[in-house]
Amino acid sequence: MKPSIGVGMVGHAFMGRVHSQAWRSVSAFFDLPAVPAMAVLCGRSPERTAEAAARLGWAAAETDWRRLVERDDVQIVDICTPGDSHAEIAIAALAAGKHVLCEKPLANTVAEAEAMAEAARSAAARGVRSMVAFNYRRVPAVAFARRLVAEGRLGELRHVRAQYLQDWIVDPEFPLVWRLSKDRAGSGALGDIGSHIVDTAQFVTGQHLTGVSALTETFVKERPLAEGAEGLAGGSRTGERGLVDVDDAALFIGRFDGGALASFEATRFASGRKNALRIEVNGSKGSLAFDFEAMNELWFHDHTLPDAEAGFRRIVVTESGHPYAGAWWPPGHGLGYEHTFTHEVKDFLEAVAAGTDPEPSFEDGLRVQRVLEAVEASAADESRWTVVER
Amino acid sequence: MKPSIGVGMVGHAFMGRVHSQAWRSVSAFFDLPAVPAMAVLCGRSPERTAEAAARLGWAAAETDWRRLVERDDVQIVDICTPGDSHAEIAIAALAAGKHVLCEKPLANTVAEAEAMAEAARSAAARGVRSMVAFNYRRVPAVAFARRLVAEGRLGELRHVRAQYLQDWIVDPEFPLVWRLSKDRAGSGALGDIGSHIVDTAQFVTGQHLTGVSALTETFVKERPLAEGAEGLAGGSRTGERGLVDVDDAALFIGRFDGGALASFEATRFASGRKNALRIEVNGSKGSLAFDFEAMNELWFHDHTLPDAEAGFRRIVVTESGHPYAGAWWPPGHGLGYEHTFTHEVKDFLEAVAAGTDPEPSFEDGLRVQRVLEAVEASAADESRWTVVER
Amino acid sequence: MKPSIGVGMVGHAFMGRVHSQAWRSVSAFFDLPAVPAMAVLCGRSPERTAEAAARLGWAAAETDWRRLVERDDVQIVDICTPGDSHAEIAIAALAAGKHVLCEKPLANTVAEAEAMAEAARSAAARGVRSMVAFNYRRVPAVAFARRLVAEGRLGELRHVRAQYLQDWIVDPEFPLVWRLSKDRAGSGALGDIGSHIVDTAQFVTGQHLTGVSALTETFVKERPLAEGAEGLAGGSRTGERGLVDVDDAALFIGRFDGGALASFEATRFASGRKNALRIEVNGSKGSLAFDFEAMNELWFHDHTLPDAEAGFRRIVVTESGHPYAGAWWPPGHGLGYEHTFTHEVKDFLEAVAAGTDPEPSFEDGLRVQRVLEAVEASAADESRWTVVER
Amino acid sequence: MKPSIGVGMVGHAFMGRVHSQAWRSVSAFFDLPAVPAMAVLCGRSPERTAEAAARLGWAAAETDWRRLVERDDVQIVDICTPGDSHAEIAIAALAAGKHVLCEKPLANTVAEAEAMAEAARSAAARGVRSMVAFNYRRVPAVAFARRLVAEGRLGELRHVRAQYLQDWIVDPEFPLVWRLSKDRAGSGALGDIGSHIVDTAQFVTGQHLTGVSALTETFVKERPLAEGAEGLAGGSRTGERGLVDVDDAALFIGRFDGGALASFEATRFASGRKNALRIEVNGSKGSLAFDFEAMNELWFHDHTLPDAEAGFRRIVVTESGHPYAGAWWPPGHGLGYEHTFTHEVKDFLEAVAAGTDPEPSFEDGLRVQRVLEAVEASAADESRWTVVER
Repeated sequence: MKPSIGVGMVGHAFMGRVHSQAWRSVSAFFDLPAVPAMAVLCGRSPERTAEAAARLGWAAAETDWRRLVERDDVQIVDICTPGDSHAEIAIAALAAGKHVLCEKPLANTVAEAEAMAEAARSAAARGVRSMVAFNYRRVPAVAFARRLVAEGRLGELRHVRAQYLQDWIVDPEFPLVWRLSKDRAGSGALGDIGSHIVDTAQFVTGQHLTGVSALTETFVKERPLAEGAEGLAGGSRTGERGLVDVDDAALFIGRFDGGALASFEATRFASGRKNALRIEVNGSKGSLAFDFEAMNELWFHDHTLPDAEAGFRRIVVTESGHPYAGAWWPPGHGLGYEHTFTHEVKDFLEAVAAGTDPEPSFEDGLRVQRVLEAVEASAADESRWTVVER
Repeated sequence: MKPSIGVGMVGHAFMGRVHSQAWRSVSAFFDLPAVPAMAVLCGRSPERTAEAAARLGWAAAETDWRRLVERDDVQIVDICTPGDSHAEIAIAALAAGKHVLCEKPLANTVAEAEAMAEAARSAAARGVRSMVAFNYRRVPAVAFARRLVAEGRLGELRHVRAQYLQDWIVDPEFPLVWRLSKDRAGSGALGDIGSHIVDTAQFVTGQHLTGVSALTETFVKERPLAEGAEGLAGGSRTGERGLVDVDDAALFIGRFDGGALASFEATRFASGRKNALRIEVNGSKGSLAFDFEAMNELWFHDHTLPDAEAGFRRIVVTESGHPYAGAWWPPGHGLGYEHTFTHEVKDFLEAVAAGTDPEPSFEDGLRVQRVLEAVEASAADESRWTVVER
Repeated sequence: MKPSIGVGMVGHAFMGRVHSQAWRSVSAFFDLPAVPAMAVLCGRSPERTAEAAARLGWAAAETDWRRLVERDDVQIVDICTPGDSHAEIAIAALAAGKHVLCEKPLANTVAEAEAMAEAARSAAARGVRSMVAFNYRRVPAVAFARRLVAEGRLGELRHVRAQYLQDWIVDPEFPLVWRLSKDRAGSGALGDIGSHIVDTAQFVTGQHLTGVSALTETFVKERPLAEGAEGLAGGSRTGERGLVDVDDAALFIGRFDGGALASFEATRFASGRKNALRIEVNGSKGSLAFDFEAMNELWFHDHTLPDAEAGFRRIVVTESGHPYAGAWWPPGHGLGYEHTFTHEVKDFLEAVAAGTDPEPSFEDGLRVQRVLEAVEASAADESRWTVVER
Repeated sequence: MKPSIGVGMVGHAFMGRVHSQAWRSVSAFFDLPAVPAMAVLCGRSPERTAEAAARLGWAAAETDWRRLVERDDVQIVDICTPGDSHAEIAIAALAAGKHVLCEKPLANTVAEAEAMAEAARSAAARGVRSMVAFNYRRVPAVAFARRLVAEGRLGELRHVRAQYLQDWIVDPEFPLVWRLSKDRAGSGALGDIGSHIVDTAQFVTGQHLTGVSALTETFVKERPLAEGAEGLAGGSRTGERGLVDVDDAALFIGRFDGGALASFEATRFASGRKNALRIEVNGSKGSLAFDFEAMNELWFHDHTLPDAEAGFRRIVVTESGHPYAGAWWPPGHGLGYEHTFTHEVKDFLEAVAAGTDPEPSFEDGLRVQRVLEAVEASAADESRWTVVER
């Protein structure tokens, strides 16, 4: 019998649901050193947390994350709350000797992210592991893209073109949910989805952004307040409106330390694009293109082939030789969004068992945060070139 | 607390793994009248079955399906074995008052399928339910395609074009696994994947094939025998070769009872096509196209729009208004192969609880079997037009 | 100064317009041994022919094709009339020592096609050349596909999947134009567009169909008669309807002499498909896919690559190393429909100058006709397997 | 008989070849008020110009553009030279009362462009017309995109995403042709292809860029010099290398006067992208996407449809109701690169005959030039926000 390792999760909204599915499924598909036990779920409302724990398969429920952190049956703390509480929970959990998986963005500010990275470094010295949940790294196609770049198949990188396009707030009557509030979310499209493309681009290229020039915009400046439903920004009666104090869209251009030029765009106003996390990388020997809306496909152009034979090829990333894919189904039987999280917890569990530091680390999360900070600084100062701190 | 309903599953290879994931996940996402309990798994080898049960989350293990069928903690029998054992297990389970979910094709012969359909009818009269697992009906895009046709959005149907293209046995040195043996599998590409496109086409159109004219072929007539690994055809020492006695590919043209012409092709020799279950339907008011390799997309052409504005539109079938999709993630966060099975058991559980007959029924499975029989008869008789029996 | 060679063209509707553009343009892009002179255009109406000649750039006009054939300034006769007049004109022209380029299908019956092939053979012995205008062979992507197959890049061919999908008569009120009349057109979708995919498939594979099993259908059996407009079937007053006596759609399955299975479909009832001439070929070493609606692209799968890297690659067929493409624009600056005709007359002029027989020959046209005949025979006899005569 | 109007063309390289094809073809397809006569071609070398005139169909040849401008048989001067000579030729031609069609970019500097726009205004007052040859406006799909935006189908515009991706100088051994020399070309990717996307974006949106923040880069700073061949940068012996003094790539973000955010990228280093002029526009009611590599397709998302039915639809822009398309072939029989020029001269000839000012005007060309100037200024000043002058 394999040993088990207890997990306690904080938050049971969208991220909590998908993390639960990952914890529930991972050991059926991957041969893990330790099997996760879904020990306890934490939420604010006793009734709703108990209901969620039952539905999602957690053995117990808590309403105070501090108690969760202290429980003996919890070795891993999985943080699925909005960004404003990440730092406090993560630092406390690490201090309590618990391994921490924390949703992205790592924090709402660079200061918090720095404190978290510091806590993670000190915890690592004590054998306590931490990881930030940039799940898109674990799309098989994205992990395979990274492998091709690392093997030199793209040669010298010239261009990175990254977009994260959504359209869920195009309607000006869509309410002022917490993701549109600076207090809770830190920023708008920038932190929520811009952080994903920054991390994905840095991961795939193996390089870092050195500077940016940016624009941000809030197209709809007031929205209806709405009460009650989870995730909504503050209780009010219908009819009132509140100010949107985060960006609806953020665009920036920049440079990578390996010499590539980059263009980034994160928006919630791209009508018809639902979850189009896209990245294209052009190099002297080849190019890659990916769009999460077709997540099982990676497009690869091998520029070393004769011109007449070359072209972007659609690789269906479901072969046993592709990252993660061999654990699942035969070729062509694709995976979905949730599997990126299953891969994430698999890698996290393996790193914990092996006593190695999983990636992306809190340091990686901090690096993303520094890019977001540079973007905001540039946008606030006439798009002036702004160096990303190291 | 919701009541629970016990499930016993026979078989733990590919289908067993994906069915397990469906039973394990369904109640976290759908609000079911009864929560499935994964009671017992049955396989031939005690060791391997016990290991699989532990890994896949089944509470107990059996090596004789007859004992599984008789267990008090089993109300549902899920049959995931090759086609040669479907009839015996299903009929026994129904006789024992157990609801039955049976993998496709329903049986290896029409005679067996008839006996199963008869057993299902008689069981239904006693409140015992049965369903054949044509999972592709539960792809949200396919279910949405059915809805559009049912609503008349395509008008009078003129053409059905269905293909199921794979390439896993293109290499003549690929071994003689059980799916290439008539004894176990009944037929080759025809029964394995041809059955899926026949069912999918009849489901989406709401019509039935009335006759066919067919060709079948076995391109590679001898293959290496291989011992040991599950699913392989008979134990032998390396170096020997065996005869392939099933089709590698089956093509047929036919007519639907609503007047449409149809073209079907099932093959395991379409190099580069991994799991391309494709269907296109053309009607007087519109058209639909689907390819499972991009399973979250449905292409819809509305022919009633002005010519200048019309075109096939790519609907990302992840909206809350799409079948099944609302239970999962936000728009654009796609599903994978396994979710078709989760939807399948969800519908099955709901039908069992509601006392209604789930679809596709064993009768539907028999209808597919009759088409396959007509295809084989036509192919054996100079492609002569062969009426599909009703 | 290069010598010139006089061309006389019969017919100035759709085909006449596009042939004129080819004759007008070819010498600006290709370095030809002789420059075509657009000597004379022939049509039935003196006024309309004179107007067309002026507009399309022909130096003179005739209303009797026999006079055109006899003119001293005509060395090439280009036949752009409906199929019912091909045999008579072509045979007379060849007898008069004129090289003949004849639109497809070669004729409306096998008997006529045989007579034409016989006349072509005898003319060739006298140095007089002939060619049938299956223009799609001269799409650069199709010619490149042929090259890849000829070089063995696909290995042993297993499957040919060909479709020609249009939708211009989906509306039952579309009038009874000459293409819907057996007298003029010989057959419907089968001869008009089915002939193209038969020729294209035989060209790309370098193989021939040996037998077929077929279905044809006329979905809309009566249509409004319309007077006046060119190409319409007979003069009548509005309100009358006439019988459609040709097929609206033709489907067949067949075998190639190299062992491949084939599926063909030609229809004018595929709503939303405008001119989708499609062919996919699967072989043991690779696959090809083409769709004329994206005519500058060829999809090639190299099955000899490692699984993880393989996939259908989109080759933009505009490189200087691609057939015909080097004569035009830089890479990525695509060609259109008309260019297939420019390539056709270029190859024809070169063959005439070189004293070689151009392809496709009238013999090739006859071979296509024999396939069409077998299709009609099979469809008329319960889809029975029908051998294609050699 | 229609009147004729004499055309004199300066330059016979790439642009000269495609303009010739346009002048040669236009009157066969469009019912023009006056038929263009290809009077005279001008080039530097007497031999090569005479050869080109014969091949391309020009009645005479000149080696001094000043003589061409003065000829009585020339009413239209078509300027197909590099940008450094545009101003001088165009201003002289306008002064001589000749209508001018001038290749893009309008000039190599804003000062020249201003002088040209001033000359154009003053000529217009005398009934002399001028137009800058941004041919991509006349892609039917692009013209149709403009129509949809103008009709309000996209609502309030939020995002413009424009790219022009090529890869012809990825190889560092590709020689230093004139397009890589600041003296001749003014700038690199920015002026050559960046100008196209600026014009296309301003045309489709009906709006103008108000400011930009930019990056430019020269990846390969030295290249081999090459002698002899037309268009190459200066005579030298093999083995020497020269400095590249233009940009290889230019990226910028900006704002449109209607409130949309914009992202632009022009590069010759996007391996595998041949001529990917792409634009996507997202608005509150819909979105559009276009890629010139598939020039006959426009993707349109109608955001006012129910969510479950909405998606980007692929409109094959070959219907008679689409701009320009009705003059050519039946639906689905696509056009190529050259046809954009045919449409351009058609519109120019019609405007000349009607006595109206054709678009894009020299003023439009100047506006593009001002954007390019702002891009260069921003790139030279730490990407600082730079207002586009009006």
